[in-house]
Amino acid sequence: MSETSAGSGVSPVQQRVEEELVERVLRSFDGTPSPRLRLVMESLVRHLHACIREVRLTEAEWAAAIDFLTRAGHLTDDRRQEFVLLSDVLGASMQTIAVNNQAYEDATEATVFGPFFLKTAPRIENGGDIAGGAPGQPCWVEGSVRGTDGTPLPGARIDVWEADAEGLYDVQHGDARIAGRAHLFSDQGGEFRFWALTPTAYPIPDDGPVGELLTACRRSPMRAPHLHFMVSHPGRRTLVTHIFVAGGDYLDSDSVFGVKDSLIKPFEEQPAGTPTPDGRDLGQSTWTRTRFDIVLAPAGI
Amino acid sequence: MSETSAGSGVSPVQQRVEEELVERVLRSFDGTPSPRLRLVMESLVRHLHACIREVRLTEAEWAAAIDFLTRAGHLTDDRRQEFVLLSDVLGASMQTIAVNNQAYEDATEATVFGPFFLKTAPRIENGGDIAGGAPGQPCWVEGSVRGTDGTPLPGARIDVWEADAEGLYDVQHGDARIAGRAHLFSDQGGEFRFWALTPTAYPIPDDGPVGELLTACRRSPMRAPHLHFMVSHPGRRTLVTHIFVAGGDYLDSDSVFGVKDSLIKPFEEQPAGTPTPDGRDLGQSTWTRTRFDIVLAPAGI
Repeated sequence: MSETSAGSGVSPVQQRVEEELVERVLRSFDGTPSPRLRLVMESLVRHLHACIREVRLTEAEWAAAIDFLTRAGHLTDDRRQEFVLLSDVLGASMQTIAVNNQAYEDATEATVFGPFFLKTAPRIENGGDIAGGAPGQPCWVEGSVRGTDGTPLPGARIDVWEADAEGLYDVQHGDARIAGRAHLFSDQGGEFRFWALTPTAYPIPDDGPVGELLTACRRSPMRAPHLHFMVSHPGRRTLVTHIFVAGGDYLDSDSVFGVKDSLIKPFEEQPAGTPTPDGRDLGQSTWTRTRFDIVLAPAGI
Repeated sequence: MSETSAGSGVSPVQQRVEEELVERVLRSFDGTPSPRLRLVMESLVRHLHACIREVRLTEAEWAAAIDFLTRAGHLTDDRRQEFVLLSDVLGASMQTIAVNNQAYEDATEATVFGPFFLKTAPRIENGGDIAGGAPGQPCWVEGSVRGTDGTPLPGARIDVWEADAEGLYDVQHGDARIAGRAHLFSDQGGEFRFWALTPTAYPIPDDGPVGELLTACRRSPMRAPHLHFMVSHPGRRTLVTHIFVAGGDYLDSDSVFGVKDSLIKPFEEQPAGTPTPDGRDLGQSTWTRTRFDIVLAPAGI
């Protein structure tokens, strides 16, 4: 079993000591009433011990890991979630998404949730503006929601959220603003439309231990420009995803591994003065427009 | 590679999606300047993703894990270390100890450090008392420190710490007391002796997320009765260990997997009135005595 072998150069006696410890820890979960919890804990124990043995983790490294988790915990509060960031930069969030959103017919692909969703985002009508005063280039977003059977889905709840032109979500400004986020519902034809801001690249919060890790590994904290969606409808699998700006920066090095080809959409630049779809007067501002046709898998897939 | 395979019933297309994600995450560490950090991160990523894929981790379970870590972080402070407890109950601490303290000739075996060591423990002379007023049955501890080559080691620093008869370490009482801990040095012959308290069984702190996990798995939080030692001497591998009370409770189910047969020592009960080794008058109190002969491996083993 490769997952329980120690590194090379470890004596058979020592290997036996280490393997017996793994077995002892596994046995301690024998009395777990929930078969699911037991299975998860046993897998966690096997992989955790395999990792420690494989790299021959030093006591100083163990202490550094404890310190890392401690500092991550102290930094985490209602508005900052360092453990989610850690999961994100290790690809664990994206792998969990992959496992739970298996490819199904032409259903829209999912991507990472991220730490900046708020349940309390205001409702807007179709055609409304999610910006809430946040600075940035206006962006017209329209599209449809249907099932994999082709049925248009009226009344689908669409949550959208994004960073502003400064690369910050509202909650990162440290005041009480709610901006760059809203929810709306698809109309009778399953269509939706709203004003947002053209997404811009921004770094994930990198002033904490996760940022230190990225720096030590020479990894960029930058995320490719994107707009978050969460789309739900009774009887359908809830979709958490983004759309990415075609031609945008960092599509190949997104810090949380969120980019999928199918989610990259053209955001067409509109010169100042181009008439807007709803007659909104944008003065001398340029704007962009994009389309996102969303397909939801059946629930339980 | 068993460590990168998904569970059964996963389609080849889906397996490829998941494997490609693992490869993408691994590649993100290609530019890490430290070969050691790169190796550790790659192993961590492989095992973390393998675990998520193997158990088909649900999004609710992922969220529960984030919540667990968050609560552990918020509970952790200078006097409570929930992440160390987590590492302890998963056997990760003990495995790290095993990896770093490989069997060497007759060197005394190591065991877990635990979260209750304090650098600021007072110094006592040989024959002094570490109790510092803590309640419990007096216990005379004596022994020697030598190298694996048989040489007595004078001037070895010996830190000792333990819980009191209530099952609490001084730092858990929430006042400023320093009790049940001290450091001393071996004498010119490499011998040492001191008064302590006969160790009693106690639970690890179980009012936090780690305690909830133990409860959910029907695991006991109890530790077998023990006395902590840390012994250091220039040119020798520092030893972190315990001695356990022969015949004590929980030797077979120690919550942190710390027990090793070689560390179980007789603590001989002495009836009230039995003359003490140093003439100390214990009145009508019974007491115990034990011996611990410590052997240190060379440094760098």
